[in-house]
Amino acid sequence: MALENFMTKTAITPTRAQDYSQWYQQVIKAADMAENSVVRGCMVIKPYGYGIWEQIQATLDKMIKDTGHENFYCPIFVPLSFLEKEAAHVDGFAKECAVVTHHKLTTNANGELQPDGKLEEPLIIRPTSEALIGEMYSRWIQSYRDLPLLYNQWANVVRWEMRTRIFLRTSEFLWQEGHTAHASSDEALAETKLMLQTYVDLVENHLAIPLYYGEKTASEKFPGADITYTIEALMQDNKVLQGGTSHYLGQNFAKAFNIKFADKDGSEKYVYTSSWGVSTRLIGSLIMVHGDDDGIKLPPKIAPLQVCILPLLKAGQDNEAILTAAHQLSTTLQQTNYQGKNIRTKVDTRELRPGEKAWSWVKKGVPVRVEIGQRELESKQVCISLRTQAYGMKQFMALDDFIANITQILTDIQNSMFNAAQQNLHKQTQEISSKDEFYAFFQNNGGFALAPWIDEPQSEQQIKQDLKVSPRCVPLTHIDKVGTCIFTGKTGARYTLFARAY
Amino acid sequence: MALENFMTKTAITPTRAQDYSQWYQQVIKAADMAENSVVRGCMVIKPYGYGIWEQIQATLDKMIKDTGHENFYCPIFVPLSFLEKEAAHVDGFAKECAVVTHHKLTTNANGELQPDGKLEEPLIIRPTSEALIGEMYSRWIQSYRDLPLLYNQWANVVRWEMRTRIFLRTSEFLWQEGHTAHASSDEALAETKLMLQTYVDLVENHLAIPLYYGEKTASEKFPGADITYTIEALMQDNKVLQGGTSHYLGQNFAKAFNIKFADKDGSEKYVYTSSWGVSTRLIGSLIMVHGDDDGIKLPPKIAPLQVCILPLLKAGQDNEAILTAAHQLSTTLQQTNYQGKNIRTKVDTRELRPGEKAWSWVKKGVPVRVEIGQRELESKQVCISLRTQAYGMKQFMALDDFIANITQILTDIQNSMFNAAQQNLHKQTQEISSKDEFYAFFQNNGGFALAPWIDEPQSEQQIKQDLKVSPRCVPLTHIDKVGTCIFTGKTGARYTLFARAY
Repeated sequence: MALENFMTKTAITPTRAQDYSQWYQQVIKAADMAENSVVRGCMVIKPYGYGIWEQIQATLDKMIKDTGHENFYCPIFVPLSFLEKEAAHVDGFAKECAVVTHHKLTTNANGELQPDGKLEEPLIIRPTSEALIGEMYSRWIQSYRDLPLLYNQWANVVRWEMRTRIFLRTSEFLWQEGHTAHASSDEALAETKLMLQTYVDLVENHLAIPLYYGEKTASEKFPGADITYTIEALMQDNKVLQGGTSHYLGQNFAKAFNIKFADKDGSEKYVYTSSWGVSTRLIGSLIMVHGDDDGIKLPPKIAPLQVCILPLLKAGQDNEAILTAAHQLSTTLQQTNYQGKNIRTKVDTRELRPGEKAWSWVKKGVPVRVEIGQRELESKQVCISLRTQAYGMKQFMALDDFIANITQILTDIQNSMFNAAQQNLHKQTQEISSKDEFYAFFQNNGGFALAPWIDEPQSEQQIKQDLKVSPRCVPLTHIDKVGTCIFTGKTGARYTLFARAY
Repeated sequence: MALENFMTKTAITPTRAQDYSQWYQQVIKAADMAENSVVRGCMVIKPYGYGIWEQIQATLDKMIKDTGHENFYCPIFVPLSFLEKEAAHVDGFAKECAVVTHHKLTTNANGELQPDGKLEEPLIIRPTSEALIGEMYSRWIQSYRDLPLLYNQWANVVRWEMRTRIFLRTSEFLWQEGHTAHASSDEALAETKLMLQTYVDLVENHLAIPLYYGEKTASEKFPGADITYTIEALMQDNKVLQGGTSHYLGQNFAKAFNIKFADKDGSEKYVYTSSWGVSTRLIGSLIMVHGDDDGIKLPPKIAPLQVCILPLLKAGQDNEAILTAAHQLSTTLQQTNYQGKNIRTKVDTRELRPGEKAWSWVKKGVPVRVEIGQRELESKQVCISLRTQAYGMKQFMALDDFIANITQILTDIQNSMFNAAQQNLHKQTQEISSKDEFYAFFQNNGGFALAPWIDEPQSEQQIKQDLKVSPRCVPLTHIDKVGTCIFTGKTGARYTLFARAY
């Protein structure tokens, strides 16, 4: 296929405009990131998708440790009786959980393998671990000296989703869940907010995704939380994705699991707890915020591969000098520091036509492609293509200049991706002051609507039914501001962000 | 408690000599590494134990990637019908697996929560993933160009063990499992051996545990493997622990799951596969190989904390200069490279008596402790204690010399730990040439017995019944040597290592 052909078509069919949902599936397939498993509702995260998760993990794990938390690992099973102890909690998860009832398989009279060895008490595969950890903390915490307890785990969890979509909603997913216990409400609240800010830092500064963040409204809170903080991001179809949550659990779990400590004055008190998590869902938001009709586009900071080097080899010729130059450049970049780590590079020596080869990296969203052929070798240049620019746009640079400027090039790409997404976010956000305006906004393009709202079920159900819109959060930027509710006309309404959500 | 008291007693009760099994449990408790969960057969890996696992993971993950493998993630569920496809495989795992049969909980007439939403097909929580991955590879592999496929995953697995012991045998454990597919038998065998050597490198050179390694005998092979390679280590009670295995699966899974490829000549062939894994069990071997009656002793390369700095503070005095010096030393060491990473340090400023404080780090097995008090400050010295030396043995060093020599000190500790364990391994290994000698060896202290043996069930069952001894492996060092079977008198017997095993 000639280069011209590539330039006039897009890699992904259908395009975003044609069918956003199908486009999303095709982008994942084109980049070979993940696929639906034959196991109902579960996904297989393939190496390229998992490589992105490893980058997110490494970045966030450092942040979690730098803020004084330690990793641990808890069992995957939650006994049914534990889950029941917190009433709101079990209500939230009973409808969608995987239940282990037997511990072996034996062959029946017909020669068929069947579950056998019935358990006395069914075990639930953790949908989240508050209930299990509550029991542990009640034993581990005795005195104020044991507080705060600041633990986190990286784990898989299972929620039996009926309608699944890769990365966004799957029966099993990977995440981290932090669980902390504190002597005072203030301290637990400060922790909850600190982890919210940590997620904002991760998502805005590393995933290049601009956010709104704030408090969840009553119906959208975590089952068992007093306050849930959330980060919310706008996708290109103007729907929004909840990217992570941080919960102030008050004394709800402390009372349900009897987590008490002897305070300095000798009195016995319940602790205050928090929990917080982000998941492989973030990969879905990366695709939907940054992707275009050529595929995914990865921000350099979390791209598994930041620079791909493509030697332009000619059949039947001596290509050794070109290959040597390509590998030398790769080694040099791998010794260059970007964001505290060595630059991640690869030399692609596959036997493919140059256009086909370049195109495969476009679809994988690699930020920088570098071509080196005979011409570049002779002129001591390289030919650079950026994923953030249209396919076919190339610039020639002196090799030495490229090496000297690579960290700046990556920084510029990272910033330009964030800025583009932020521009879109602002464009699609509207402050709304009447119900009519609200309906018109969502009957047209939609996006984020900011409006004063009295948090109550009636109007919430109405807009869900009429417009498929739900309250996303009371943004922290507006946390102290009140107005007149656009639905009920009542005063003292909090400024709330509404959107259609994934 | 005065220092003298610490010096005349040991931290762990009972001692190894008194009750090895109880000693093991108490070492884990004293170092706060893990505990039995209320969830049957499962463990909670606490931060210090998990920190060791993170070091092992980071080390092995790099080795796995450096040998061309990529990480991915597969679902936790294996449909029952998949597990059944390889006959030996299902036989091996059916007796001890967690079975998910329902996908929700609902309240019955008595107000009790009960499993509901019965699944059409039961799902097994992976005891290992060959069966699930077999199905995937059959779709992913079409042509010789897709080979080799070199994937690995870090995951939790569940095997419903009836008698459990922390780290050694638990219903859920953490591990990595590599799964590769190849065009030829030779290539798959080379991969299997490469990963065996990788495990030898990890365990000998990082965990400082000397090994025997070789082929498993017929009854000890992985269910579904043609050849299982194993690493076997000697504990201080002269029992041995299998530390990891690498399986050559031949075409067994390829045929069960129809994994075929079109070769260069166009013909359709079955692939050859391998799988290999090590688990959190390795932490158990660290404890049992290196621990003493004061607790665990960690080799520097995988110790979560390599140097602990203990400022000797005096109540009612100005301790600022001492604290500053302690933190300065910590920062300096954290910028010092040992084994390609920064040295891991901590300044312990807890309000505890110096002896109590030091003792807590002894029990956690930290390789080097450094005390800095007024005296050291004035003389520009530090006071060093090594975990490999008896408690109370201290040496004063000029601060500058300590900083200049720290990497050498850590290297020496690492080597001395390996050498001590290797000396013991050699001492406890005996070449045996008759049945009487074999019985005498195991009726006394036992250890590793090397003897020519014809691999057959009768003698194997006999020694298991009489001595609780089993064949561990045919060591690669003796793979081509044969002799006369000490039980049957038959010639052509392979040299086999026997031991009592965990």
